[in-house]
Amino acid sequence: MKNISYKNTVITDGFWKIKQDMIKDVTLESVYNRFKETHRFDALDCSWKEGDPDCPHVFWDSDIAKWLEGLAYILAHSENEKLEKIADESIEKIEKNRDENGYYNSHFLVTGEKFTIRNEHELYCAGHLMEAAVAYYEATGKKLLLDIMCKYADYIEKAFVKEKTAKFVTPGHPEIELALVKMYEVTGEKRYLDLSKFVVDNHGDNDVDGLVYNGCRITYNQDECAVRDRETAEGHCVRALYLFCAMADIAYYYDDKELFAAAERCFENIVNKRMYITGATGSTCHGESFTIDYDLPNRDAYAETCASIALCMFANRMIKLNPDGKYGDAVERALYNGVLSGISMDGKSFFYENPLTIDPDFNNVNTCTDGGKRFPITQRKEVFDCSCCPPNVIRLIADIGDYMYSYNDDTVFVHQYINSETSQDGINIKQETKYPTNGDVIITVNAKTQKQLAFRVPYWCKNFTVNKAYKIEKGYAYVDISGEEKIIISFDMTPKFIKANKRVHDNAGRVALMRGPVVYCLEGKDNGKDLECVRVDINSSFKLSDCEFILPALETVGYQEKESDMLYFEATDEYDRIPLKFIPYYAYANRGETELLVWILKK
Amino acid sequence: MKNISYKNTVITDGFWKIKQDMIKDVTLESVYNRFKETHRFDALDCSWKEGDPDCPHVFWDSDIAKWLEGLAYILAHSENEKLEKIADESIEKIEKNRDENGYYNSHFLVTGEKFTIRNEHELYCAGHLMEAAVAYYEATGKKLLLDIMCKYADYIEKAFVKEKTAKFVTPGHPEIELALVKMYEVTGEKRYLDLSKFVVDNHGDNDVDGLVYNGCRITYNQDECAVRDRETAEGHCVRALYLFCAMADIAYYYDDKELFAAAERCFENIVNKRMYITGATGSTCHGESFTIDYDLPNRDAYAETCASIALCMFANRMIKLNPDGKYGDAVERALYNGVLSGISMDGKSFFYENPLTIDPDFNNVNTCTDGGKRFPITQRKEVFDCSCCPPNVIRLIADIGDYMYSYNDDTVFVHQYINSETSQDGINIKQETKYPTNGDVIITVNAKTQKQLAFRVPYWCKNFTVNKAYKIEKGYAYVDISGEEKIIISFDMTPKFIKANKRVHDNAGRVALMRGPVVYCLEGKDNGKDLECVRVDINSSFKLSDCEFILPALETVGYQEKESDMLYFEATDEYDRIPLKFIPYYAYANRGETELLVWILKK
Repeated sequence: MKNISYKNTVITDGFWKIKQDMIKDVTLESVYNRFKETHRFDALDCSWKEGDPDCPHVFWDSDIAKWLEGLAYILAHSENEKLEKIADESIEKIEKNRDENGYYNSHFLVTGEKFTIRNEHELYCAGHLMEAAVAYYEATGKKLLLDIMCKYADYIEKAFVKEKTAKFVTPGHPEIELALVKMYEVTGEKRYLDLSKFVVDNHGDNDVDGLVYNGCRITYNQDECAVRDRETAEGHCVRALYLFCAMADIAYYYDDKELFAAAERCFENIVNKRMYITGATGSTCHGESFTIDYDLPNRDAYAETCASIALCMFANRMIKLNPDGKYGDAVERALYNGVLSGISMDGKSFFYENPLTIDPDFNNVNTCTDGGKRFPITQRKEVFDCSCCPPNVIRLIADIGDYMYSYNDDTVFVHQYINSETSQDGINIKQETKYPTNGDVIITVNAKTQKQLAFRVPYWCKNFTVNKAYKIEKGYAYVDISGEEKIIISFDMTPKFIKANKRVHDNAGRVALMRGPVVYCLEGKDNGKDLECVRVDINSSFKLSDCEFILPALETVGYQEKESDMLYFEATDEYDRIPLKFIPYYAYANRGETELLVWILKK
Repeated sequence: MKNISYKNTVITDGFWKIKQDMIKDVTLESVYNRFKETHRFDALDCSWKEGDPDCPHVFWDSDIAKWLEGLAYILAHSENEKLEKIADESIEKIEKNRDENGYYNSHFLVTGEKFTIRNEHELYCAGHLMEAAVAYYEATGKKLLLDIMCKYADYIEKAFVKEKTAKFVTPGHPEIELALVKMYEVTGEKRYLDLSKFVVDNHGDNDVDGLVYNGCRITYNQDECAVRDRETAEGHCVRALYLFCAMADIAYYYDDKELFAAAERCFENIVNKRMYITGATGSTCHGESFTIDYDLPNRDAYAETCASIALCMFANRMIKLNPDGKYGDAVERALYNGVLSGISMDGKSFFYENPLTIDPDFNNVNTCTDGGKRFPITQRKEVFDCSCCPPNVIRLIADIGDYMYSYNDDTVFVHQYINSETSQDGINIKQETKYPTNGDVIITVNAKTQKQLAFRVPYWCKNFTVNKAYKIEKGYAYVDISGEEKIIISFDMTPKFIKANKRVHDNAGRVALMRGPVVYCLEGKDNGKDLECVRVDINSSFKLSDCEFILPALETVGYQEKESDMLYFEATDEYDRIPLKFIPYYAYANRGETELLVWILKK
């Protein structure tokens, strides 16, 4: 099974065209400006000295690298001389300032000894620079950064494998594992794949004392067991999911069934027990981590944007190993909800955490201590001290073409419904759709060798029509094709109220509204205060109305119990009917600070 | 308005007789043994030296003192030679080890310089020893501890007022203020009252830098404003409520209307906006403090037992200033719920925190960090490092007689319904009742001068009958009396479902069950798992059944939604009927670790 590359796929119209244009026209430059202002680009000069302000942070290189990678995906389809020049100059600085071994890290080159501190994102930065190098080379044909990173990768192999001069074995923050696979894919150098496998295999085999970093336990770094023994997703979510990506990659290239099984267990554990309805993960800010099955609090959710992105990356890799619609489902769930909520509608500001409930009054509770209760912020910001999410959103949206199609000898697979045209290896696909504005999709396909087209039947859809006979297998509808075929599909997108498993205590008695793949929410701006008390009848009908957030708003009637000024009073069964207006969850907090509610009381 | 003393009041039968006997027969000795084992009694020897184990903690004196005070209340009505001997020996040690000024503190005498660290509970310990001294003298006639504490109080006056040698002005933990009032009451020495007023008046006038203690802000110590400017209850709940007690006392003795008004604002703020249905306060473990109006989370409630006790103390003082039933209501609410939940049914173990929701599975969430989420413990303990609550429960239950009756020239007031006999200042009252097993109360009263009897109509009761004409005023029913009268009252105790104000978001869509003054709960032991999802119909009828927890259990039918193994699935309106058994909230966690739920989903 092979992916059709984003390079060959043009998003021609609709929802994701709007989002890609926003990235291209606004976000790339805005994030660049914020990174410039905060001295991240200056750090490339490696001129910081003890006593200077703005010491380069250990993960600043990764911020630059992800921005560069995102820019590359955009440059593959459109020109941007100004930003390309900035990219080239940045790469030249890296070339100039790396050491004689090819090592480059803007923090350690000016502050400390390299390869000595496991948790300080050193190999993580190297990995992101490798991903950027691959993308920039593929998009522009410019090879300088790739050459730099090849030399650096060779040096890492020397320090970690051949001579073992490095003071630790595996990185505290996985990333280099999956990046080395990309290096292998573009260079064909098997030693990069082997190096990736070496790192993957060594997780769980570090000399650790139980506590590794700021009071975090070894689960934080996915070091409590070997990757093949892993039963559940543990620790820091982004770290975990980047490692799972590499596990899927290595399983794919080495046909390693044991590793695939471990990755599959992690995937199942996440999507069946540890994932928000938005595709977000991370139930606590403490360690930004997974906790236990069904522990999914809404108000103090961590639900990091990067974790939703990483779930897309992981799930998309699993498709190549096992053509099951559940992976594309996970990508879709995360994309339209937990990823997109991370960026404002104007493309300029970002959430790191994506809670499912916000009440501004209570989120800043006035405890009398400094280190009191901690809730996510209620308004997006243009840049953070730890600004991993903004460039990660850029690169994912710019790279969305990589999540849509793949093929094996028999079958062409359609995973995501996005208005687009593509052509690779004798396969031509044209997809015409306004999805997810509605559920109508026309796929015109012409494949030289494949005899079937398989399109994913989304998890949220019970009723759909197609103009051809089909059979369902593992979440895909398979139709026979020969020559040019036009497959006309219609997915029923009637809004539906969703319940959570009863073990998710935070959602007890509550339902969430979805229309197609999009989770909806109530905002205070439209619906007033104390939304926690609002009730809905799950048999309500909805009116679709225009709204400023691409997709329609959903209007219906809700119920509110009779009010009282008293703190406690005798309960009655009296309700007032109130109008309710739902907007897509991804669009919350775009009109000022206001209440947010996804899980609504069921009448 | 004057109180009838616990000394003149004998609890003759029923609910509180059972509790007082438990304290007398079990708790006093059990707590003594735990305090002995943990070296609290050894600390009285003041023989600890640098390098020794078990350095006396700054608040150990207060633990001993509250135990002593509780013992005194018991000794007033029954003998206990063994514990009285221990008490006498302890008092002799204090006499022997105090310094030449009369100063005594088992921590500072062996470790540091006295009166230098505001937050280290030094005057708090002194205050508790004063309360013990007053109680022990009144109960036994033995004056040694009172003499010791008079000399100590004189020295405190010298150090804090006359010579100002102390390094701080007001104590970090209020307590001495109300204790000095008791010293005045028993000795008649006005200077103790003046000293109390001095301390009360100086709150809010300390030289502070915003942060005072372990990252706590000045609100923690009620130092953000002068007492007369206080609009709300802020900071550490027990500290706040002890201060409010003294504000009420000073307002009473100085006829200080401004101070009464401030205390009244705090009372209203608490009972109308910051109090759990159990009468508990403390919405967060961070600073053990009040937060903001309506922030009353159930699972991570702090709800310290001592804070419920302190609310009883505060409310009972307010009665003397303003005969309004709301104060007796607050006492009753706290007594039967947030106070009693603090002690096990066998009288041996205690909760410091009294949450309203427990799920053992989720309360010990496996975050990958050391300092992760923090929830209250799920099982009572016999002793804590900070063991303020156990002896505080002892002294309150032993002193319950002080909360029942008071009188002015015209009227005899009955605040609490407890089977008892009392006689003071020509007033004789006999109260025959099984309350709160049922709502029938017969009060036989014979007063020499008063022409009315006023009995509190509990806040939870809308229907009651009485065999005499009455008029209602501020929560009391007033009936005329002359000579011996028998007032026969019946309060309707039909179980009721209670709602919380819609701003209490944690209780949205939920109801709590009360029968009379007693809050009921569901326990996993009786009702299985995932109680958060159980629904009740507020129109349900109940069957009263015998249970092991003094009051009847309440049985009814509940509803549970159809189950699914999926994490998210389409909602339906299908329910299964399930039997539900409610027990009194105070009895939770007496049968092993299990789920607890007070606020139940309303169908």
